[in-house]
Amino acid sequence: MPKDVISILDLTRSEVERIFELSTLVERALKRRRKLNLLDGYTAALLFFEPSTRTRLSFEVACRKLGMDCLVVVGEAATSLAKGERLADTIRMLDSYADLIIIRHPKDGAARFAAEIAESPVLNAGDGAHEHPTQTLIDLCTIKRLKGCIDGLTIGVLGDVRYARAVGSLLKGLTLFSPKKVYLISPSFLRIRESLRIELKRRGLNFEEVENLVDVLPELDVLYVVRLQKERFPDPELYEKAKGSYAVTREILEKHAKSDLIVLHPLPRVDELDLSVDSTRWAAYFYQASLGVPVRIALIAYVFELERELVELAREGVS
Amino acid sequence: MPKDVISILDLTRSEVERIFELSTLVERALKRRRKLNLLDGYTAALLFFEPSTRTRLSFEVACRKLGMDCLVVVGEAATSLAKGERLADTIRMLDSYADLIIIRHPKDGAARFAAEIAESPVLNAGDGAHEHPTQTLIDLCTIKRLKGCIDGLTIGVLGDVRYARAVGSLLKGLTLFSPKKVYLISPSFLRIRESLRIELKRRGLNFEEVENLVDVLPELDVLYVVRLQKERFPDPELYEKAKGSYAVTREILEKHAKSDLIVLHPLPRVDELDLSVDSTRWAAYFYQASLGVPVRIALIAYVFELERELVELAREGVS
Amino acid sequence: MPKDVISILDLTRSEVERIFELSTLVERALKRRRKLNLLDGYTAALLFFEPSTRTRLSFEVACRKLGMDCLVVVGEAATSLAKGERLADTIRMLDSYADLIIIRHPKDGAARFAAEIAESPVLNAGDGAHEHPTQTLIDLCTIKRLKGCIDGLTIGVLGDVRYARAVGSLLKGLTLFSPKKVYLISPSFLRIRESLRIELKRRGLNFEEVENLVDVLPELDVLYVVRLQKERFPDPELYEKAKGSYAVTREILEKHAKSDLIVLHPLPRVDELDLSVDSTRWAAYFYQASLGVPVRIALIAYVFELERELVELAREGVS
Repeated sequence: MPKDVISILDLTRSEVERIFELSTLVERALKRRRKLNLLDGYTAALLFFEPSTRTRLSFEVACRKLGMDCLVVVGEAATSLAKGERLADTIRMLDSYADLIIIRHPKDGAARFAAEIAESPVLNAGDGAHEHPTQTLIDLCTIKRLKGCIDGLTIGVLGDVRYARAVGSLLKGLTLFSPKKVYLISPSFLRIRESLRIELKRRGLNFEEVENLVDVLPELDVLYVVRLQKERFPDPELYEKAKGSYAVTREILEKHAKSDLIVLHPLPRVDELDLSVDSTRWAAYFYQASLGVPVRIALIAYVFELERELVELAREGVS
Repeated sequence: MPKDVISILDLTRSEVERIFELSTLVERALKRRRKLNLLDGYTAALLFFEPSTRTRLSFEVACRKLGMDCLVVVGEAATSLAKGERLADTIRMLDSYADLIIIRHPKDGAARFAAEIAESPVLNAGDGAHEHPTQTLIDLCTIKRLKGCIDGLTIGVLGDVRYARAVGSLLKGLTLFSPKKVYLISPSFLRIRESLRIELKRRGLNFEEVENLVDVLPELDVLYVVRLQKERFPDPELYEKAKGSYAVTREILEKHAKSDLIVLHPLPRVDELDLSVDSTRWAAYFYQASLGVPVRIALIAYVFELERELVELAREGVS
Repeated sequence: MPKDVISILDLTRSEVERIFELSTLVERALKRRRKLNLLDGYTAALLFFEPSTRTRLSFEVACRKLGMDCLVVVGEAATSLAKGERLADTIRMLDSYADLIIIRHPKDGAARFAAEIAESPVLNAGDGAHEHPTQTLIDLCTIKRLKGCIDGLTIGVLGDVRYARAVGSLLKGLTLFSPKKVYLISPSFLRIRESLRIELKRRGLNFEEVENLVDVLPELDVLYVVRLQKERFPDPELYEKAKGSYAVTREILEKHAKSDLIVLHPLPRVDELDLSVDSTRWAAYFYQASLGVPVRIALIAYVFELERELVELAREGVS
């Protein structure tokens, strides 16, 4: 039982799978009652030094459904906090107010630092280009539910695999399982960083870096798409050229994809995932988004050792 | 029973009048109990792409009094959301979290667009220069309560009738009733837009555009004042000249107003409504403001079909 | 029983001491139950025209622990409110929504002005360089608890005693007690303002203004440290020179301090209080910070005349 979840690798494969199961119980319980209230009277602090409305709202809903009060520090307040005082002092303050700290921070390692200071559990909601473990739980849970099993799959990751926080975490999370093959599909200057490449090799992940989506698309069981951000490109013209090649459209899928491919995206999207895909059989990203709250509730319930209570709530829902 | 209230014209006259009655029941129930809790465990999303603290707080209080959790997206968070992702994706996300969506957006039509995507009810808290139906409900409810009946009244609307969102909505709302006459009092370059003029004509509203307050003031039963914004004027000098002519003071009222005239203003005010009016018999705008919460609670209760429950709560308050 | 607490001098010595006692009851009650819920269904408005995340969060936690709903107006929303409308209209609006108003404002006197308009109790969370009475309650409570008694102590106040809001309030608060001596230790151009000097003299406080910490450090029972803000200095070089002389380090304390000196700081800190002090016997500022919530709960309970209920909750916790 981890106190903190800073990296997806703070969890074992069996813990990750237990959280998937709990997320199903959460959904079942939420069909019968609007709130679970297992943490009534508890307080969660949501500390977002970097804006991320989706992640923040999803965590906030999860905490409230569990009955917690939420202390939300975002935007200007977070900025002035970040400027005005040492992170250690901030965390000490929040630790004295809150039973759970959820933190997003632009610097790699900030969440781990916070976890070392706080006595309350700390959940990493994204630190720099480093980790985003709850996104990874959601991504893996989506794959598990839709494909039955993560082992043995061929998975493509398309876009800026160098800087997208969700990608690094996902790849680490995949090392807990045994996918057949992972293709990293990106322009050559946006390949994964050397440190991550070494870690993935060491952990035995079978991956290959390629530049062309259509070359590997026919093999894929899962296509995970992330944003290509203009500002990462050496020059704007290069971006305009690349944009089309790293975008997923209904047309490309109809030409090259297996019929049971699932397309995931952590959202929000810009141009890399065309609206024309939304209504196709391949689109799994709205389902993926819908797991944001139940998976986060499941994780918090796991960290607070509320499995038994959750099982009871879900059973009541069935009987 | 409408799912969404985007325009005041999404409601019929009898629905509007029912909401007025419910607002009285709300006030009665709130005398006995601090919260009504008819929507305990429900979640409301308040999505304010444009700042409006008054409207936001009033909706937030209404939702909380009904027992709802509130997800508030304002300021920087709303801005980054607006920049970073498609409105459709944002709404889909909120729809999966929230049982009610309250939206303010700088673009005309954005609220209608949101309502088409969302399964949860959507209430328009102001879209562009377009509609602000809950403000209109409050305005009409104030008139109804203080004058007994809206039909047959002579009503003046003073100020920037071209761009003030509250004005367009109010005029449409008045077409549900039969006022004797509506005077639109503004500088010539701030007259209502042609499209609205045509709609009001078509709907049979008897209105006249004039430039001088004192010419019509003696006839008025209701004077509705809105801001004259400096930046709407072709040049600053023109504004300085106009400012005085489109401002309401105690002196002007004492000289020209009927003794039972009521002065309304959606607030906040700047120079167009002098502090000297506050303590006069004519001032009805603080009473109007006090209806913000009960009318919004009544509307939400109506949309969620909670009329019977509300009647019971109010009865209990009396017995 | 004051309706409002704008200045620490709105309270008598015996009221202040009663609030200290209540804070102990609050802590005792909070050991048994996560929330006290004495003000269930009530609404607090937190209106922060100036950012102060620590003070805001501490008040927000206090209100929520008492069962109140919180309307939080901070950042951009507060700014646009401040620009767009008269404070009187804003306060009138909040007064109609909230049972308690907590206000921070950059202008001296703004909180008093708000209190005069509002019917609900108003608590000053800091107005300009003027007053910050809840910080003073926390400071004095810390001294009282750790030293047993405030009378007879020798107290040093170090740093920008001219502009630091916490200092003016603390000095006024000390006039309710009989400290032996108060040293104000600052560069000559950051001495307390003449008006405050006169008031403190009139109220009989025995204080002396000095420039050198080490001269008086051996005498001190309490050292209260506040920030030296660079922008207050006539030129940057002067700041660089002064910085060292008005900073507290473990080394200085080991050389000059009594073994039972306590060091306080309202936090956040920058350079004036070195991290090396954190783990020494002298550091009392984290304990001081931990009193932020219980003292604020005690104050609110006192203002709402909930003493008897609080005593019962605390007794229940013991039996």
